[in-house]
Amino acid sequence: MKLRVDLLPHGAYSDTVLIVDVLRATTTAITYLERGADALLLTASPERALALRGTTGEDGTDVRDDRYLLGGERGGLAIPGFDFGNSPVEANSQNFTGRTVVMNTTNGTGAAHVAGTSGKHVLLASLRNAHAAARRAKALAVEEVAIVCAGTDGRVGMDDVYAAGVLAEYLMAMGEFTVDDGARIALTVRRTVGNPLEALSSSAHGIALDRLGLGEDVRYAAQVSESTTVPVLADTQDIEGALRFVAG
Amino acid sequence: MKLRVDLLPHGAYSDTVLIVDVLRATTTAITYLERGADALLLTASPERALALRGTTGEDGTDVRDDRYLLGGERGGLAIPGFDFGNSPVEANSQNFTGRTVVMNTTNGTGAAHVAGTSGKHVLLASLRNAHAAARRAKALAVEEVAIVCAGTDGRVGMDDVYAAGVLAEYLMAMGEFTVDDGARIALTVRRTVGNPLEALSSSAHGIALDRLGLGEDVRYAAQVSESTTVPVLADTQDIEGALRFVAG
Repeated sequence: MKLRVDLLPHGAYSDTVLIVDVLRATTTAITYLERGADALLLTASPERALALRGTTGEDGTDVRDDRYLLGGERGGLAIPGFDFGNSPVEANSQNFTGRTVVMNTTNGTGAAHVAGTSGKHVLLASLRNAHAAARRAKALAVEEVAIVCAGTDGRVGMDDVYAAGVLAEYLMAMGEFTVDDGARIALTVRRTVGNPLEALSSSAHGIALDRLGLGEDVRYAAQVSESTTVPVLADTQDIEGALRFVAG
Repeated sequence: MKLRVDLLPHGAYSDTVLIVDVLRATTTAITYLERGADALLLTASPERALALRGTTGEDGTDVRDDRYLLGGERGGLAIPGFDFGNSPVEANSQNFTGRTVVMNTTNGTGAAHVAGTSGKHVLLASLRNAHAAARRAKALAVEEVAIVCAGTDGRVGMDDVYAAGVLAEYLMAMGEFTVDDGARIALTVRRTVGNPLEALSSSAHGIALDRLGLGEDVRYAAQVSESTTVPVLADTQDIEGALRFVAG
């Protein structure tokens, strides 16, 4: 079995894909499902998210679809018109039973759209569900597990590379893999850069979030294998412009 | 001063850029200049390289411009119609005095075009000229040195990341830098993955070259700071579709 780590999303994926945006999209996505959400819809743009929910009609009629809650960020802050930012700590304090959360974020939902159009099995992974996500990927994959780091604004992030290294380490404890250069780099980072909180806090993205007063999210995201929830791309994609993930 | 390492070419560069494609484009480029070439023209496509030199006219007249020699590869092998592959060992056995070498390669010349359109000072770096390239970059930079890894077919390569780590280490011995996530990853790889030959030989690109019978090029490219030649993007770019580098 092959283990491939893309330090940035790239190209097509033929088998099983783990998408990693540990600060914070995939961490938050897991939390929405843990807190009862029926499903997640990851959209390619904020506009698509707003359109899905609908809005107040021109005649004042409310045509909003109240099944949908909107979560997302730009520059780390909630998008105007959205119900939630992209905060796992905020998500963890709410109850989403019976709701679908429509997500759009700077890096993570874009990475999902790159991978989601090609991979046979597409899962969302973070440090919090690392062991469960690795186990699930190992069970699904036939030829290759690809770990795809979302990165930050098109650049490689220490936070995602470290998390990819943790996932790679779990996978390699579960079976034989031939590893690519990206996996070797991620494993090297995982084994050298310190504990998960140090790695995330010292990353450019972690420092930026801390400056926005979101350091609690970084600490939450640094918890390893506390959750067994793995968001899985659903086979039936009935909503245009959005990828539907359900708890696997 | 800021030190930035892009593990793949990305976006715009505002100050001083070191482009790294250690296997093999930047290593070979340095060798052409060491072996007497007046200049290098890095083109965005093989077609542009062929057009620059000209060809035999339809009436049989030779309209080739004999100042130009063409070097480049696709899949590691010489491009049809080119004079040379992309081999530093081959380049090192020739005399290029009075000639201009027109280069086009899979990854390196593209990276140069990404960086060359924005950076104030653009240099080509490899392991072979690492110390000289770092020193030159340090002398030129006002705010930032960006080390840009060419990668392999859009994916991060251990070979370039390792070389970026060597360059970063030299730079940090020459002055105070604040480093980004990419630089931290490159330094981690540099300090962990073994000696230069091990790092290059074990990279996916190194293995592929060895399989093509080009292992001698990998060994040549793994030599550290044997050359003081640093190709520098010339101020005057008088040839459309090509970047002109001269010995700095």
